[in-house]
Amino acid sequence: MAALLDDDRLFPLDSAARDLARALYETVRDLPIVSPHGHTDPRWFAENAAFPDPAQLIVVPDHYIFRMLVSQGVSLDALGVPRADGSVEQTDGRAIWRLFAENYHLFRGTPTRLWLDHTFENLFGMEVRLSAGTADLYYDHIAECLATEAYLPRALFERFKLEVIATTEGALDPLKWHRQIKDSGWNGRVITTYRPDAVVDPEFEGFAANLVQLAALTGCDTSDWSGYLEAHRRRRAYFRDHGATATDHGHPTADTANLSPSEAAALHARVAKGGANAADANLFRAQMLTEMAKMSVEDGMVMQIHAGSWRNHSGSVFASHGRDKGFDIPRRTSYVDALKPMLDVVGMEPGLTVILFTLDETVYSRELAPLAGVYPCLRLGPPWWFFDSVEGMKRFRAAATETAGFYNTVGFNDDTRAFPSIPARHDVARRVDCGYLAEQVRAGLLVEEEAAELAHDLAYRLAKAAYRL
Amino acid sequence: MAALLDDDRLFPLDSAARDLARALYETVRDLPIVSPHGHTDPRWFAENAAFPDPAQLIVVPDHYIFRMLVSQGVSLDALGVPRADGSVEQTDGRAIWRLFAENYHLFRGTPTRLWLDHTFENLFGMEVRLSAGTADLYYDHIAECLATEAYLPRALFERFKLEVIATTEGALDPLKWHRQIKDSGWNGRVITTYRPDAVVDPEFEGFAANLVQLAALTGCDTSDWSGYLEAHRRRRAYFRDHGATATDHGHPTADTANLSPSEAAALHARVAKGGANAADANLFRAQMLTEMAKMSVEDGMVMQIHAGSWRNHSGSVFASHGRDKGFDIPRRTSYVDALKPMLDVVGMEPGLTVILFTLDETVYSRELAPLAGVYPCLRLGPPWWFFDSVEGMKRFRAAATETAGFYNTVGFNDDTRAFPSIPARHDVARRVDCGYLAEQVRAGLLVEEEAAELAHDLAYRLAKAAYRL
Amino acid sequence: MAALLDDDRLFPLDSAARDLARALYETVRDLPIVSPHGHTDPRWFAENAAFPDPAQLIVVPDHYIFRMLVSQGVSLDALGVPRADGSVEQTDGRAIWRLFAENYHLFRGTPTRLWLDHTFENLFGMEVRLSAGTADLYYDHIAECLATEAYLPRALFERFKLEVIATTEGALDPLKWHRQIKDSGWNGRVITTYRPDAVVDPEFEGFAANLVQLAALTGCDTSDWSGYLEAHRRRRAYFRDHGATATDHGHPTADTANLSPSEAAALHARVAKGGANAADANLFRAQMLTEMAKMSVEDGMVMQIHAGSWRNHSGSVFASHGRDKGFDIPRRTSYVDALKPMLDVVGMEPGLTVILFTLDETVYSRELAPLAGVYPCLRLGPPWWFFDSVEGMKRFRAAATETAGFYNTVGFNDDTRAFPSIPARHDVARRVDCGYLAEQVRAGLLVEEEAAELAHDLAYRLAKAAYRL
Repeated sequence: MAALLDDDRLFPLDSAARDLARALYETVRDLPIVSPHGHTDPRWFAENAAFPDPAQLIVVPDHYIFRMLVSQGVSLDALGVPRADGSVEQTDGRAIWRLFAENYHLFRGTPTRLWLDHTFENLFGMEVRLSAGTADLYYDHIAECLATEAYLPRALFERFKLEVIATTEGALDPLKWHRQIKDSGWNGRVITTYRPDAVVDPEFEGFAANLVQLAALTGCDTSDWSGYLEAHRRRRAYFRDHGATATDHGHPTADTANLSPSEAAALHARVAKGGANAADANLFRAQMLTEMAKMSVEDGMVMQIHAGSWRNHSGSVFASHGRDKGFDIPRRTSYVDALKPMLDVVGMEPGLTVILFTLDETVYSRELAPLAGVYPCLRLGPPWWFFDSVEGMKRFRAAATETAGFYNTVGFNDDTRAFPSIPARHDVARRVDCGYLAEQVRAGLLVEEEAAELAHDLAYRLAKAAYRL
Repeated sequence: MAALLDDDRLFPLDSAARDLARALYETVRDLPIVSPHGHTDPRWFAENAAFPDPAQLIVVPDHYIFRMLVSQGVSLDALGVPRADGSVEQTDGRAIWRLFAENYHLFRGTPTRLWLDHTFENLFGMEVRLSAGTADLYYDHIAECLATEAYLPRALFERFKLEVIATTEGALDPLKWHRQIKDSGWNGRVITTYRPDAVVDPEFEGFAANLVQLAALTGCDTSDWSGYLEAHRRRRAYFRDHGATATDHGHPTADTANLSPSEAAALHARVAKGGANAADANLFRAQMLTEMAKMSVEDGMVMQIHAGSWRNHSGSVFASHGRDKGFDIPRRTSYVDALKPMLDVVGMEPGLTVILFTLDETVYSRELAPLAGVYPCLRLGPPWWFFDSVEGMKRFRAAATETAGFYNTVGFNDDTRAFPSIPARHDVARRVDCGYLAEQVRAGLLVEEEAAELAHDLAYRLAKAAYRL
Repeated sequence: MAALLDDDRLFPLDSAARDLARALYETVRDLPIVSPHGHTDPRWFAENAAFPDPAQLIVVPDHYIFRMLVSQGVSLDALGVPRADGSVEQTDGRAIWRLFAENYHLFRGTPTRLWLDHTFENLFGMEVRLSAGTADLYYDHIAECLATEAYLPRALFERFKLEVIATTEGALDPLKWHRQIKDSGWNGRVITTYRPDAVVDPEFEGFAANLVQLAALTGCDTSDWSGYLEAHRRRRAYFRDHGATATDHGHPTADTANLSPSEAAALHARVAKGGANAADANLFRAQMLTEMAKMSVEDGMVMQIHAGSWRNHSGSVFASHGRDKGFDIPRRTSYVDALKPMLDVVGMEPGLTVILFTLDETVYSRELAPLAGVYPCLRLGPPWWFFDSVEGMKRFRAAATETAGFYNTVGFNDDTRAFPSIPARHDVARRVDCGYLAEQVRAGLLVEEEAAELAHDLAYRLAKAAYRL
């Protein structure tokens, strides 16, 4: 047994199931990692510069970490999280790290604890648990590591056995880091993903200006509905040229619409100049999901829908510190009615793949599995965000498999910008899936050879196939 | 261990609980089957003709099977599923069977796989798993079986130890097959169930014409509210003469209403001529649930409510292939507010039994168990449709029992038109329930004698009692 | 093994996890009980009179018991439950007890059975199960016990190791029993809780008259908005003088509002005279949650919100027998949108604690844990009412811990008026929590020393800390 990690962690408690889970896991633990959706920064791989201090690497950018600390009274400022105006109250990495370390017990029972301990042990070789008493030991050791060649981004990419990683960029992004990676001759595969929220959502900050910028980038008249659509087509092509095989859409709901061309054009005219009302904004986002799906039928890009987050729930924190500060809260989300307009248009298209994600676990068995279990274009993304967790994964398999089977799911997404946590996250998914399969065998629902094939599918093959990688 | 099935399948993994589950199961495995709700065809038992080829018996009519194949890109046409215009693209049973067989891996982890393997092994004696390689072996052997006396419908009925089976017929059905069964002298008990959706739901195809036909059948003036109600009373009596002890109502929501007689008559007048608007249609269905409940108080028929399916979700598939093609999707469904009008009228009636079904698992613990745990007329039906599954049953017991107990539930319904799967479905329910009871004993929540009594109740007695069979 | 109870009840089935759970439980089983929220009657402790007969102690006041019996056709009248007019149909305790005993099997699988068997064995020394055959044996023995000194309320308080118990009183309550307890010199700590529903909810019976009474008690002009708020401040201070550290709010929804002072005053003017419409009533309740939270920031009282019960669902039972007769049914409840107005005002206040309870389990992972996992003022109350059960507790930990951790929860509430059941309820919580922790250790998610610390936290420390006791 290791210092921080139990070798048999996350496997079933029953010893026969545990033995089988361990055996299945051995066959997949060292498979390459396919990371088809996430938020790492392509600049890391382009410049290959050393990561800054331990706090800047691990604490400051990780909303899972700072939200928990905030919930117990620690301030974002004390953690060095930048304010909306760009100022930073605490710049002393060691002070931030100590504050984190003395509150490390708060993470008991959370996936963050699992990811961190995995990182501490496997990446940095730590053998004692993080605490107030070991804070400096950790800080000094990690800082020392980060200064070495072996911890540069490309070295870690290779150490992590990343076969491919997809980053996520806005439609207006010039993709210069991706070009630089390509031009560098390094053979790590870092691809982009087309995420057009800022030019699709009339409620996005600066939407009207964004359309102007989109026009400038594409040479299309984005104040005109068909020019606007053509601009998307060109940007999608540009992203495909930088490796993209997928698009991604982060919407507050899963609403879709199927307006007539003239209705759509009129709606576009109302929202394009900015200041859309809420109903028009929602309808435009809804219509654009259908438009994006139709373009995916044309150009073969896989479409991802991440629906149901109420972003920036706290008005005061949004004012002081801006977006992505841990105050994004899930909402009840509907899919059966919401997706119907889009599905009526493209639902039976043989070449289309639409991958659905949710923050409302009640829809797994009631809506998503029944939909994905019949519509050929639909696939189920893995448990997302708060549900990228041991229990979250178990609930997903238990709720979705009986109706959608395994083959309407798409393997694992780490969906993270915490680069060092990527191996830990995939490891959790592989362990939990092997445990699930082992229990299925022990319950007489699968035989061992099937479980072995499925373990490989879930760890590796389905992600490649679904994302066309 | 058998070829396809594990003798201990579905029992708890823990060995002490597994031993106890096995012992409980031994006491119920061979009990007769009471099948109080389902969709088998009474004509089978009336004519007792041989079933057609394996594909027509097993694949073509089973929406669980073809929906999964469709979800992975197989077309309904290639599976020989009839189009809305009556045409059939593929009539070669062997070709259909091969397509099914080569995709059999898609069913891993689903109840369909369990039911099919049970049928293949126990009914047809197969010893190798179905696959592309064994497709013809299966086809030839099953076809051979079906040509023999032992596989005629009545022989299977007896082999399955069916003590009683309820079919489901529309209000306008002449029930000629039930009469023929009765007249034949065969002593299998096949009863009907009164399912009046086509004359209760103003949005049902041909509703106005259906009322005319109802008038013709009953001699009542169905264009008049009280005549319409009297027509129901007469059809209910006619169904009772053909064995019915229950009615069944498949509504998109669980809404009920309690209009005054004059409001109800006015509503009826608006909808009876066809073309009702959506609000009137919903209100009429809602009022009719209350009317049906009142008639059940009068005539003693058990009332079943199956609420919450969005039928025919895909417009294009409905247009090409019609209803019941696997595109019925569950929706979020409310009961606490929806049932109140009906419960205010009949909720405390001592002689009434209303059995509730849902496709929204979130209501088990929040709404259905609290309601059935206090209103004397209410009982909880078993997990329905997508939830007639191992995990579905476990979630139901875990969510409902602590508030509603066991005695406000009604045993198992197979609810199927896949006749050969009936023993498999009851076997799954008996195994899961025995596993649940065994775990309760091991957790100190029940003692063994109680578990044994409950095993018998859940497998046999409660269904008979609740449905008054 | 004891007669009625299994010593290892509720522990995990897996033997290694069970051994560890038992060891953890041994460290907490005899800790004092902190009961920070419940509905026992302070008069018991003030007068210290003998409890009446067994039926009056155990059956008649317990809605968990009579609702189950009613669900199976027993009438409230036959159980001696008082009618709304004060009359009682059945006053023979032995007859009530026999009716209860012969239906005791209905409670199989419910927490009521666990609580009762615990009480029967540990408090009354019974060694055979309650049934029709043992009804008189039980009745006679319990009646005999109740007549002795050892079963007087204060003796039981001490026997139960109650370190502190909070009762719940309306804003208009004079708190005379609490004063009498204090004046008596007895050192049992019985404190009150401020529950102002009757003067906060415009739909509460007699609301307008209640405001008049509130004015009389406080000397404030409650027909004026600021006078009304000042009256609350004074009553809160009065309650604090009688030990209160918390307020409690039982609302049909979790809606909050943040009106301007002039809007709030105008709303108050509309509702204060009685006869408010439903929208105003809801808005006033919503605004008052925010006002109460602001007062909690001032005076340090912990705020509890118990949202989501549809009270008195059956119109006929409410008419015949009045409130609290087992016909309170949970409803779907939203928190993310509902709490935002209040959180925008006080959500980041360091000194505030708001404890959230729900009857809609779907919100644990989707809404409550994400909210409590970031807002410093929020904490999660334990599973409430129908979910104060073995499976309910397991679902809560499994759903909430990964996002909110353990330290945003507040230990256990028994929330009962069934005084003899208090040790049983805390014992269930301690066992289930130790089982959960043991499984976490066995799954490699915690180490044993952490589990031991957490076992103590969940059983004792967190309740004291959260409620400032």
